[in-house]
Amino acid sequence: MDNKALYNLSYGVFMLATKHDGKVNGCITNTCMQVANSPTRVAISCINANYTCELIKKSGIFALTLLDETCDFDTIKHFGMQSGRDVDKFTGSFDLSSLPADLNQIPYLKEHACSVISCKVLESSDLGSHTLFIAEILDAILLNDKKPLTYADYQARVKPRPDAPKTEDTGKKIIGWKCKICGYVYDGSELPADYTCPLCGHPAEDFEPIYG
Amino acid sequence: MDNKALYNLSYGVFMLATKHDGKVNGCITNTCMQVANSPTRVAISCINANYTCELIKKSGIFALTLLDETCDFDTIKHFGMQSGRDVDKFTGSFDLSSLPADLNQIPYLKEHACSVISCKVLESSDLGSHTLFIAEILDAILLNDKKPLTYADYQARVKPRPDAPKTEDTGKKIIGWKCKICGYVYDGSELPADYTCPLCGHPAEDFEPIYG
Repeated sequence: MDNKALYNLSYGVFMLATKHDGKVNGCITNTCMQVANSPTRVAISCINANYTCELIKKSGIFALTLLDETCDFDTIKHFGMQSGRDVDKFTGSFDLSSLPADLNQIPYLKEHACSVISCKVLESSDLGSHTLFIAEILDAILLNDKKPLTYADYQARVKPRPDAPKTEDTGKKIIGWKCKICGYVYDGSELPADYTCPLCGHPAEDFEPIYG
Repeated sequence: MDNKALYNLSYGVFMLATKHDGKVNGCITNTCMQVANSPTRVAISCINANYTCELIKKSGIFALTLLDETCDFDTIKHFGMQSGRDVDKFTGSFDLSSLPADLNQIPYLKEHACSVISCKVLESSDLGSHTLFIAEILDAILLNDKKPLTYADYQARVKPRPDAPKTEDTGKKIIGWKCKICGYVYDGSELPADYTCPLCGHPAEDFEPIYG
């Protein structure tokens, strides 16, 4: 199986937010599609280790902001490359009081965002690394007329270019791998080819070796 | 709810094929995403009324050809705008003997296609108009280095421009709606705004009124 064949699947880039028991959190995802039109249903997939996923399992509701082509790396870094377990993401530039909220009082982004979709989970399926949620759409708002940001465009244009690969330090042993995007460290000498960063979702090719 | 907000979700364009009890069929879809990476899983959604969907429910296997940016309307028309119940799609330009087959002996396209993913269904969920299938990947092959065709690109560049809207025939009653892409006829005076053609999947805006 050639994992690169799967990279040709097309995705958008989203800020997925939820609220449970007073706690609001959001993360960056790339997996949402409309899966039925009568009645209207969408499916999203979330990394189980993510705090947003944990909260959606409890709240059963979410707001998906569809980022547009003007979105910058700062927005993606803010929501995608730190955990809501460590920081409150809805402070500073994204202070809760400065953002609009949907019918469930979940915040969404108004800048660099072309749509927001408010959903209620109907079914979920635990798939190991991720949970797939099938949801009813409670509301959908068109925010501007810009094109949505695609994951391919994010990879090609928005994310910072990783530094040129360093010459291999021969004679030294690889003891781990570090994500060049968010800094997450994988412990182990061999990084599986289909590995994706549990924090920011970037693939194995965005990791660099750590020598012992 | 503004249905246009949902149009900002990003998709690819695929030829989805299966084989059951000697019968091979394929159709055009736009809904597939990788939903887990450990183990690797994808989800696809199919219109229940489609023959390919009926066959996948029985066979439990499928091959998804990811069309590339060079794909022309003829390929999409051939697989997407006629039913395998009426015609054998794997004859003529797409004769079975001229196409490669995957490990399950399901044909895939080698022209205008950048990847093929061979899958086995693990779970399915009937969502009314569509069924969502969660599948294991048995094999994935990278076919060329071209960019995948996105659904947005298909809508903007590949599909023929519908004729300019005709002046409304006032005084005449609307008795139905015809899909301008494939000719499918909807019986009824009011076409729901979120309607999509059950034959070719195009939205309500691609229908024109039929006057009585």
